[in-house]
Amino acid sequence: MTTRACRRDVTIVGAGPVGIVLAILLAQRGYEVDVYEGHPDPRVNPRPGGRSINLTLAERGWQGLRAAGLEDVIKAMSLPLRGRMIHAADGELRFHPYTPAGDSIYSVPRSELTKRLLDFAEEYPEVSIRFGHHCRAVDVEACTVSIVTSGGERIDARPSRVLAADGAFSSVRRSLLRNPGFSFYQRLSPISYRELRVPPTAAGEFAFAPHALHLWPRGEGMIVGFPNLDRSFTISVFMPTQGETSFASLSDRRTLEAFMFTSCGDLLAHMDDVAHDFFNGTPAPLLSSGCAPWVHGGWLALIGDAAHTLVPFLGQGLNAGLEDCRTLAECLDDANDRWDKALAVFEDERLANGEAVIGLAEKHFDELARGARDPLFLVRRVIEERLHAIAPDRFVPLYTMVAFGSRPYREIAAVRARQEALLDRLMSVPDIGDRLHDEEIWRLARSELNALETVDESLVSDLEEALPLGALHPVATVT
Amino acid sequence: MTTRACRRDVTIVGAGPVGIVLAILLAQRGYEVDVYEGHPDPRVNPRPGGRSINLTLAERGWQGLRAAGLEDVIKAMSLPLRGRMIHAADGELRFHPYTPAGDSIYSVPRSELTKRLLDFAEEYPEVSIRFGHHCRAVDVEACTVSIVTSGGERIDARPSRVLAADGAFSSVRRSLLRNPGFSFYQRLSPISYRELRVPPTAAGEFAFAPHALHLWPRGEGMIVGFPNLDRSFTISVFMPTQGETSFASLSDRRTLEAFMFTSCGDLLAHMDDVAHDFFNGTPAPLLSSGCAPWVHGGWLALIGDAAHTLVPFLGQGLNAGLEDCRTLAECLDDANDRWDKALAVFEDERLANGEAVIGLAEKHFDELARGARDPLFLVRRVIEERLHAIAPDRFVPLYTMVAFGSRPYREIAAVRARQEALLDRLMSVPDIGDRLHDEEIWRLARSELNALETVDESLVSDLEEALPLGALHPVATVT
Repeated sequence: MTTRACRRDVTIVGAGPVGIVLAILLAQRGYEVDVYEGHPDPRVNPRPGGRSINLTLAERGWQGLRAAGLEDVIKAMSLPLRGRMIHAADGELRFHPYTPAGDSIYSVPRSELTKRLLDFAEEYPEVSIRFGHHCRAVDVEACTVSIVTSGGERIDARPSRVLAADGAFSSVRRSLLRNPGFSFYQRLSPISYRELRVPPTAAGEFAFAPHALHLWPRGEGMIVGFPNLDRSFTISVFMPTQGETSFASLSDRRTLEAFMFTSCGDLLAHMDDVAHDFFNGTPAPLLSSGCAPWVHGGWLALIGDAAHTLVPFLGQGLNAGLEDCRTLAECLDDANDRWDKALAVFEDERLANGEAVIGLAEKHFDELARGARDPLFLVRRVIEERLHAIAPDRFVPLYTMVAFGSRPYREIAAVRARQEALLDRLMSVPDIGDRLHDEEIWRLARSELNALETVDESLVSDLEEALPLGALHPVATVT
Repeated sequence: MTTRACRRDVTIVGAGPVGIVLAILLAQRGYEVDVYEGHPDPRVNPRPGGRSINLTLAERGWQGLRAAGLEDVIKAMSLPLRGRMIHAADGELRFHPYTPAGDSIYSVPRSELTKRLLDFAEEYPEVSIRFGHHCRAVDVEACTVSIVTSGGERIDARPSRVLAADGAFSSVRRSLLRNPGFSFYQRLSPISYRELRVPPTAAGEFAFAPHALHLWPRGEGMIVGFPNLDRSFTISVFMPTQGETSFASLSDRRTLEAFMFTSCGDLLAHMDDVAHDFFNGTPAPLLSSGCAPWVHGGWLALIGDAAHTLVPFLGQGLNAGLEDCRTLAECLDDANDRWDKALAVFEDERLANGEAVIGLAEKHFDELARGARDPLFLVRRVIEERLHAIAPDRFVPLYTMVAFGSRPYREIAAVRARQEALLDRLMSVPDIGDRLHDEEIWRLARSELNALETVDESLVSDLEEALPLGALHPVATVT
């Protein structure tokens, strides 16, 4: 082992939730951790107009925070959501619990979470966070990291290890793009988003029920409301960038307000000035991206959104990132802090899971959008719910597997592919739409369900051969 | 139809072979064509150290040139290659004809081809080529193209239509990367390349047989020699960037010459100063890339390498690009010059074929590399050759389908997948390596061959569902 390999310093690029939790996990293992963050300290200079969608923490996220000893404190600032509240255009509400057992995901504003995590990280003398330090590039051969401070100073650092947690538009990843053997893809969705806010009511109460994720599904678009601890709601508007009902078509105050009035009047009634927020800045397209390898030169690894960027509809972006953190810490423990080995095992475990969840998130959105267009798809959903009712343990909904457990994403993708195949077979029954009350159909379904075996490793590898890593359309658009 | 749609001007970005042939095809249809090329005129200022691999023209390339009336003149400056000449380390030679019928591909240096095509294009008064005009970006919404001249002047053009033929590192494509709905991927191979030259012998003759593509397969790397009309050979060295025998390990004159002496002495004997060319510049990694959509805003289309960049081992890069040109011209004819319709049909026909050939080229290289590592893979190749011998029309080699016909690449990919499945089944016979003379094996093979039906459209769509567009590993490395 070289002297370098014995040194106990680690550099983390990016002080978002993933970078900070990673810093804490490493400090707890006795590492000296330098964190470089291009933006100013959000506790001192809050970022105006940040674009992040509200975060939801699910089981994988909690496991990561638990490993860092942070579960309770973060739970205390989060709001549990027990299901989805669907808002119809006429104001009718339907509540769908996530699970019969009452499992919850938790809503937390990204900015609040980040600030709280920063406070905790700074309690560790091993952690030093440098704000206004933008990492421009890495040189894998020369083992250097180029940093530019907000004052324009240039620093060339030579850290022993670098973990790049610098997000969906990672500068570290960009500087790897011309390296032999490096692959990268990105898929920009035709769907963009804007964030709005619903304040507490005049009486100081939540405008909508606080125990639910609120959904206004509207054609190709969708509005999502997340409750916050201060009794406000963060509202994410997802819509096509171009087209009949789109960010381009809702181009002035009057058109926007007319659209909101007819399609989600109950939401409009609670907003101060929808047009102000809506037109303040440009909508940003949703994005998937992935790359390989994640580990470079044995000393540099991509992690979190820098390694795998998800569209938000499964709510797994941060959860997957925190699962990365926990896995890396476990790999270090298992390898007795031999980083080359730990990073190799980390990549081996996580890259395929990252690819799987990128694909699951895209497919989930495809299904949401398809449901809006295709009446037959609603039949498919009815069948799906019925199958779950018939065999709750054998036919588990995708969202339940993803959010309320920590089964590896690639296994979930394999299970889901089997479910889809079963649904395809049932949907191919002639006139299936008219036969949902026909007991013969459900006898057929029961026999098929009995054939759905537990997914084992061999099935996963079979499926990965048929559907190789990243098979989820590098060139297909997200919808 | 707007006035704009009636205008007959077209802008082409890039004066490589694809851009120029496109300009000629459009001029022949009465369009006014402006071609912008960032580099200077190669007939006046030859580019030193250009990186392009020698080009080979096959059936699809000739069809494109034939459509432009250029087949004969280009054939006259190309050398027909009837097969591959394999050079062993001890100098032993084996010649493999491409087909029993004696079909040839044609070798032509890229620079000579480009210069000749430029001369032809300039015979059309409709074509105006502006060298030293670099297209920096396009704005799809504003319908503008930003150009910077070599003198630093900035021009904002508003052409009616733009065809971006600006190659593997397309600036037009780069400026689309943040557009909603646009997807892009690139895979850099761990294999890089350098170009060298073997001059004619002292007697003015070819150093090696001129009717063949010369191959020195060496472990993970490979050297390829292309004869030129001036009796020189262009030599492309493909090797891992890093590793035991790699561009990194052959880092000085002595190591390089020792390697060449022991592994390809017959080649070294004909070179003036291998080290000079080898160390003059850095090796460039091979690259695949793809994107979607190709058509933007109804007025801008990507074409050739800008739309689909291939690794070179099937020799299809230019051929696919010229097939694009011919297809676009036919689409315009069929649509009576309604560009919106023509571009939509063009994308519909070509995008899936572009994806298919990107994948075929990568898989072909995988197979070449795997053959060097895996003795069982040689057994597979023997079986493959035998299957072709048993059923020449039913089991056609991949290279024959790709190079000596114009069957759509996506159909070829589907046929190839069936062939691979058959090979997998035969390879799964226990002890297959020892049983190649066992007649029972070939009886089995014959019955399987009889089951290999003609590939029809339904098979293609089945396969594309199993293996969606671009399924060929956005995150897997090329080897």
